[in-house]
Amino acid sequence: MRLLLANSNTSSEVTATIERAARAVAAPDTVILARNARFGAAVVGTRSEAAIAAHALLDLLAAEGAPFDAVLLAMSMDSGLWAARELLAVPVVGMTEAGLLLASTLGTRIGMVVLGRRLLPVYSELARSYGFTDRLAGIEAVDAAPQDLLSDPEAFYAPIVEGCRRLVERDAAEVVLLVGAVMGGLPRLLAERVPVPLVDGIAAGVLLAEALVRLGAREPQSGSLARPVGRLLTGVAPELAAKLGGSG
Amino acid sequence: MRLLLANSNTSSEVTATIERAARAVAAPDTVILARNARFGAAVVGTRSEAAIAAHALLDLLAAEGAPFDAVLLAMSMDSGLWAARELLAVPVVGMTEAGLLLASTLGTRIGMVVLGRRLLPVYSELARSYGFTDRLAGIEAVDAAPQDLLSDPEAFYAPIVEGCRRLVERDAAEVVLLVGAVMGGLPRLLAERVPVPLVDGIAAGVLLAEALVRLGAREPQSGSLARPVGRLLTGVAPELAAKLGGSG
Amino acid sequence: MRLLLANSNTSSEVTATIERAARAVAAPDTVILARNARFGAAVVGTRSEAAIAAHALLDLLAAEGAPFDAVLLAMSMDSGLWAARELLAVPVVGMTEAGLLLASTLGTRIGMVVLGRRLLPVYSELARSYGFTDRLAGIEAVDAAPQDLLSDPEAFYAPIVEGCRRLVERDAAEVVLLVGAVMGGLPRLLAERVPVPLVDGIAAGVLLAEALVRLGAREPQSGSLARPVGRLLTGVAPELAAKLGGSG
Amino acid sequence: MRLLLANSNTSSEVTATIERAARAVAAPDTVILARNARFGAAVVGTRSEAAIAAHALLDLLAAEGAPFDAVLLAMSMDSGLWAARELLAVPVVGMTEAGLLLASTLGTRIGMVVLGRRLLPVYSELARSYGFTDRLAGIEAVDAAPQDLLSDPEAFYAPIVEGCRRLVERDAAEVVLLVGAVMGGLPRLLAERVPVPLVDGIAAGVLLAEALVRLGAREPQSGSLARPVGRLLTGVAPELAAKLGGSG
Amino acid sequence: MRLLLANSNTSSEVTATIERAARAVAAPDTVILARNARFGAAVVGTRSEAAIAAHALLDLLAAEGAPFDAVLLAMSMDSGLWAARELLAVPVVGMTEAGLLLASTLGTRIGMVVLGRRLLPVYSELARSYGFTDRLAGIEAVDAAPQDLLSDPEAFYAPIVEGCRRLVERDAAEVVLLVGAVMGGLPRLLAERVPVPLVDGIAAGVLLAEALVRLGAREPQSGSLARPVGRLLTGVAPELAAKLGGSG
Amino acid sequence: MRLLLANSNTSSEVTATIERAARAVAAPDTVILARNARFGAAVVGTRSEAAIAAHALLDLLAAEGAPFDAVLLAMSMDSGLWAARELLAVPVVGMTEAGLLLASTLGTRIGMVVLGRRLLPVYSELARSYGFTDRLAGIEAVDAAPQDLLSDPEAFYAPIVEGCRRLVERDAAEVVLLVGAVMGGLPRLLAERVPVPLVDGIAAGVLLAEALVRLGAREPQSGSLARPVGRLLTGVAPELAAKLGGSG
Repeated sequence: MRLLLANSNTSSEVTATIERAARAVAAPDTVILARNARFGAAVVGTRSEAAIAAHALLDLLAAEGAPFDAVLLAMSMDSGLWAARELLAVPVVGMTEAGLLLASTLGTRIGMVVLGRRLLPVYSELARSYGFTDRLAGIEAVDAAPQDLLSDPEAFYAPIVEGCRRLVERDAAEVVLLVGAVMGGLPRLLAERVPVPLVDGIAAGVLLAEALVRLGAREPQSGSLARPVGRLLTGVAPELAAKLGGSG
Repeated sequence: MRLLLANSNTSSEVTATIERAARAVAAPDTVILARNARFGAAVVGTRSEAAIAAHALLDLLAAEGAPFDAVLLAMSMDSGLWAARELLAVPVVGMTEAGLLLASTLGTRIGMVVLGRRLLPVYSELARSYGFTDRLAGIEAVDAAPQDLLSDPEAFYAPIVEGCRRLVERDAAEVVLLVGAVMGGLPRLLAERVPVPLVDGIAAGVLLAEALVRLGAREPQSGSLARPVGRLLTGVAPELAAKLGGSG
Repeated sequence: MRLLLANSNTSSEVTATIERAARAVAAPDTVILARNARFGAAVVGTRSEAAIAAHALLDLLAAEGAPFDAVLLAMSMDSGLWAARELLAVPVVGMTEAGLLLASTLGTRIGMVVLGRRLLPVYSELARSYGFTDRLAGIEAVDAAPQDLLSDPEAFYAPIVEGCRRLVERDAAEVVLLVGAVMGGLPRLLAERVPVPLVDGIAAGVLLAEALVRLGAREPQSGSLARPVGRLLTGVAPELAAKLGGSG
Repeated sequence: MRLLLANSNTSSEVTATIERAARAVAAPDTVILARNARFGAAVVGTRSEAAIAAHALLDLLAAEGAPFDAVLLAMSMDSGLWAARELLAVPVVGMTEAGLLLASTLGTRIGMVVLGRRLLPVYSELARSYGFTDRLAGIEAVDAAPQDLLSDPEAFYAPIVEGCRRLVERDAAEVVLLVGAVMGGLPRLLAERVPVPLVDGIAAGVLLAEALVRLGAREPQSGSLARPVGRLLTGVAPELAAKLGGSG
Repeated sequence: MRLLLANSNTSSEVTATIERAARAVAAPDTVILARNARFGAAVVGTRSEAAIAAHALLDLLAAEGAPFDAVLLAMSMDSGLWAARELLAVPVVGMTEAGLLLASTLGTRIGMVVLGRRLLPVYSELARSYGFTDRLAGIEAVDAAPQDLLSDPEAFYAPIVEGCRRLVERDAAEVVLLVGAVMGGLPRLLAERVPVPLVDGIAAGVLLAEALVRLGAREPQSGSLARPVGRLLTGVAPELAAKLGGSG
Repeated sequence: MRLLLANSNTSSEVTATIERAARAVAAPDTVILARNARFGAAVVGTRSEAAIAAHALLDLLAAEGAPFDAVLLAMSMDSGLWAARELLAVPVVGMTEAGLLLASTLGTRIGMVVLGRRLLPVYSELARSYGFTDRLAGIEAVDAAPQDLLSDPEAFYAPIVEGCRRLVERDAAEVVLLVGAVMGGLPRLLAERVPVPLVDGIAAGVLLAEALVRLGAREPQSGSLARPVGRLLTGVAPELAAKLGGSG
């Protein structure tokens, strides 16, 4: 299968990081097409940027020339997820959505570790929107700087590990989702330091996307996810306008 | 006060309709600046278009040259509402949010009438996101065509009235929100035909926006709604990039 | 418009305080009729007193001789709110209800600061009843004595400010409602000391009541809020018995 | 034990009916003191009357001269229940609360049959307030006239039986609570006509009150239910003012 | 009445403890038949053991030769409760279920004290399943060793009392359920040391079972609790196979 | 990988059906070990049988001699799922759990079709336990007889298709889960007849189990799912007693 890794950040460095994490877990016959947004924030970190990134996601998807069988939305706020599902006939998975769904099979009470306090409310809303209101043990916002990863990895890891442990000890979390693209691959590295399973959204997302392709459910013909036809849009990329304006 | 009526549809006809409904209820000293989106769908009717409209809303807000004291987001899916609140220092109100909040003071069980079945799940999610999971009596999707309004208004009104009555009789709704920009002004016209209070989002939104301006709460300095500074965006309108990239 | 400020405490001093706060925010053409309960607690502080205050509210409303266009129930437990809505043809707003509704447009996670631990469970129930179960960040009960307000205002303000900050820092609250009649006007005074918007119920209630009058929704003819007719009551004030016993 | 049957309606005929139903299920050594409200509605049927009845309940409880070990609040809206719990040192049970609690042990999905559509929203709110949001299968409002009971009992029973059956067949209810004082004793009469267990609030309330007396839990010394002391009330019955104004 | 005390632990010592606690509260004419499981864990302390205990419970109930009018499931995870209700024509009560239901009439916010951290998530799930999601103030897991009860009772009591107090002070609990068979009888012993009512599941369960027998609701003929007939099982005790395989 | 297909029914015919459905979707290198329960019901259809099946599941898992990397619990009530997760170091997936999780990525509002009315409440509870309270559009119980599958397949398919359509039309379901082992493979057969995606639990479960094996999260060392050691059980299969009684 061909998996489109849609990074709705514009930073190609982030894309490269995500791609590495994705390849590490993808099936041998999964071809990964890593793309980033054509406009918007280098690294999405605010609600405004997330809103723009949803548009950039649709733009990216419509503009893609190569064929693909599924999409992993590789931006941790999952912005535009349901719109992308409407736009395309193939399965689309959000990385935080996938992380939560898989985590929910590994423990009853789910903890989340996020980088930075600012977006804590956003991730809380996101978890609720997927149905995990009662399953959420807590969210820990940690001050770990991704730029430390190369020079001093332990400076990056330590606060994440501490956040995980607080979730386990204080909130009785039984599994922890490490939220964010830069967390890809960390569960294996940190597994021995946290007494409950760790999950990251990129790995979970690749696996869930592959599963959905093989499930092969039909595309919806009714409801809010049926593909739009004959819509009239102006001022957006021609490929996107064409995709929504088609004749079904 | 100066109220920016932000229609994230691109149709200026819809904007004119909304503006009339807004003026009918606005305070005498409220100046209304009606604007529509610079890109996107003429009339937003799908999830993809709603995602694009959120960006178009931010674009519109950043590009506005005239000063304003509050914003009424006049697109019934309220797309981009929280992002707009982050972007701006002034109050922002969503029309469906406002309709639900005011309706919640007029009856315990709230019904909603929407035009067309396609978006029914979207409005259900929206009502839940504002906290009305347990208050929602039901949603009726009706087949009423706005284009009938001029030629045969009764053909437009009748299914709406029937939808309201079903909500009252079958679901024990005690108040009904008429959802959609084209519903502005209908509550007064149809009041005698439905035995419970009717609310529309434009009227509710204008009133709520005026109330918030007079409340005068301070702008948040922390959390997910604090105004972003120093953000780096590319490929968006320069005014929007500047607004997010400022120095705070 | 004429706004009846219904203080279901019997203390006229509290009424005067509320009235000042209300006037500070009311529209120039809003006439405020401040009334207090004819029986019950001087300052309601227990569940029993709140139950009595609900009756006192209805008694006060039925006995009022002057015409009025809306009611602000100015007792922070909002006791008797839905009964008053049933009794009257005009809009009725609860001060804590109004505070929560307006606060919900200023931040996703709402904190509440209340005076004294005793009523903390009551306010938690109240917030849930309005639909804010998932939006409530936390409730802080502080030991601030209103009687300090004149002699040593800072002794009154300091614990409130600390409570707000705890809600922001520990619970990621993005807006805080200051609960209680004596909090009227505090948001402006304390705004610089708390990094998120502050709201008080009196200001919110006046603004919401004015908005509802201008909305002009019809009175319900069916459901649990339709005005009762032909009811037989004994042992209550003749005006109240008459109001419920009328012929509709 | 001595059980105070507190009917917050003023109708002594209703009290007599309730008393009969209560005696039919009470333990041999339970002495029943049946009392009705000293003011308010003959038969409470509106929100306003329910608010007044809460005060009348406290008034009745404070005025009672005879000793008692527990209270059954025998008005189906349970108005004033938590206030009564605060006021008294002995257990207090609401009849609808008791019916729901016992019903919840007999079936997972609970149906309710109520007399008349008007109060349907009230009973829905009540069931939610006790935690049965997810357990509630549905509420059927039936037009059965208690006055038919003597002349043509089947005219009264038939719509109730039909309501029960609709709840079972349409909503998969596994137990049904018959709501209202006049329903006392009906479960036995109608058991053969409905395929799931039936419960009434009077029987459930008597049994639960007896159980709580024997449980013998201590009176709360903190929180919102600790007995108030030293409160200042005016314009209420001297016994009630005294009870709240005591020295603890 | 004859109450079958079904301890789905295999330890007869635990059974004896439970029996003592049950007799202390049972009505004079209640005959208690205490039984323990024929297979499974001595003292259930894990999810696997709880699953086995559910089978052991049904096995025990089917094998019982003496007649009985009700069952108290005396294992604090209530495992197999709804299955037992399906299997039998008589009322069945779970000890933690009963404790929560009675506690819910004594305080709005319910705390739970459990022995050991391991099962904390299980009791949280259990409380939610009975509808107490919003009523649960918190759960305290304490390290109190039942074996200390004889040699050094205070070493057992002290952490329990501290757990209760934390629930009251930190979480505003208004009533506390002491969870576990070994907690039977503790509420009376510790009442003076905790400022809110204490409840234990054995006492609550005996009282609730007695109440349900006297309520006399009919056995369900439809739904998921109707007694199965004509089922084919192999490899289970003949009495159990026979009970499910009967001809109705 | 080696996937243990654990059918907690004792019927080997059902096991064969499940195995066929599983093989149809499994990866080429997935070895499927299909096993059925050593005791219990031929085809589980009641709550009592489901409770016994949970024990039978653990018994089956402990007795398995061949190595395996994951388990698919192939009984649609998912009984014993969390216990099995505690017992084993490898991932365990419930078929209805898996179906709901994958379905939740294909549509916002999830419908369920179940065979027979009796278990409808059970599946409703199950969906809630996984967090889908707000996502559940409805459950349709249909009278389709699996024994018709060979002789007259259309007699089996038709009511299922009708049930799906009712969920789409009446409840706005956007995806439907076909519940039950016998539904395996039906989504492909019926896809053209229902306008939204269909999912079955066996296919979903195989795919999710494969994904979890590849995810490779560590086994929990704390919490309610950490593997028990040193437990003392009697009267169960020696392999099961040994597995729980080990030394960790």
